[in-house]
Amino acid sequence: MKEITLEQIAPAEIEKRSFEIIGEELGELQLDPKLEPIIKRVIHTTADFDYLENLYFTPRVVEHAIDCLKNGCCIVTDTKMAMSGINKSALSMLGVKVYNFIDDEDVIRKAKERGLTRSAVAMEKAAGLSEKVIFAIGNAPTALVSICELMKKGQLDPALVIGVPVGFVNVVQAKELIIQSGVPAIVAKGRKGGSNVAAAIVNAILYQITRKQ
Amino acid sequence: MKEITLEQIAPAEIEKRSFEIIGEELGELQLDPKLEPIIKRVIHTTADFDYLENLYFTPRVVEHAIDCLKNGCCIVTDTKMAMSGINKSALSMLGVKVYNFIDDEDVIRKAKERGLTRSAVAMEKAAGLSEKVIFAIGNAPTALVSICELMKKGQLDPALVIGVPVGFVNVVQAKELIIQSGVPAIVAKGRKGGSNVAAAIVNAILYQITRKQ
Repeated sequence: MKEITLEQIAPAEIEKRSFEIIGEELGELQLDPKLEPIIKRVIHTTADFDYLENLYFTPRVVEHAIDCLKNGCCIVTDTKMAMSGINKSALSMLGVKVYNFIDDEDVIRKAKERGLTRSAVAMEKAAGLSEKVIFAIGNAPTALVSICELMKKGQLDPALVIGVPVGFVNVVQAKELIIQSGVPAIVAKGRKGGSNVAAAIVNAILYQITRKQ
Repeated sequence: MKEITLEQIAPAEIEKRSFEIIGEELGELQLDPKLEPIIKRVIHTTADFDYLENLYFTPRVVEHAIDCLKNGCCIVTDTKMAMSGINKSALSMLGVKVYNFIDDEDVIRKAKERGLTRSAVAMEKAAGLSEKVIFAIGNAPTALVSICELMKKGQLDPALVIGVPVGFVNVVQAKELIIQSGVPAIVAKGRKGGSNVAAAIVNAILYQITRKQ
């Protein structure tokens, strides 16, 4: 039987070593220093180097996101899973709230009545929040479409849209709608993404404040 | 500006249409009918067709997993995120419990004292459960190593190990340890995987009971 050797590495060092390996594999490739922590964290979360090509950023979006998080914005996710993946210590250090409305009774009822996804209706509820919102959407393209419609009607002015739903139906198109809307955005173009990717992007931004890199 | 057309599709049909598209893209490729719902659901969750090649199954593992879920096994995850991605309605229909010990005070304390990851110590706690356990590990290779060590010491006899952590440090090796151990297992070979993949595999198995496909 082949001997399996595990690297002897302390728990606190595992993430650091992972980022070093990602850096080594990127070789000569130079990433924009502002975007690098986000791109590398998404690769760290997925082990998928396709995200080197997929991720789209509006100009100065990272600086803008950091300002928003320092100045009272909240975060709204489309899934419990994305919410669950966001680092709670970092949120608490910054006093940032995260909301997810997908299981709210009023959202479930309205979605059923109107034949819409719960994700779409949850965005309408988010539009009623008093704080400005950073949306972290990793699953539901209908959430992105709903955000675009609310913006068109003048009922929503998001601080930032992290638009990284994964999938095969309306996913590519919904992401293009966000890009064309001109809202500050981070988007994973194409089919790939996920709740884990949405959480990873939020965490990468949070850590730039809390870890003072 | 290019017109973006969205497929007009009812919420309940989105998943069905996604699986149809995946089927179309597989073309002539024939999957093992027992494994097909798992493989397709992982692709549905990740939009990543690499999982056609990556997923490893021990013989008759799906039938075995279904038996376990029908006969009082519980599920233990390594992350809150994986736990959060498992379908709660399906669990409740079957009376299956899910545990995650990562934030338990005793786990945090012991991990610190012994210089281990919390994920590793959480597996020791799982070994103390009275029910047989299906492990769903999407993040921590140290959880897989801990499971292997507990099996060697005769302190743990898992019903099934879903071993799909993602990453760059000890991930490939830890998955190989599980494969070589001979325990009933579903493993994503290589670096890829994730909490979303772990949850997708659990859900694919649950749905084979609850949706009576």
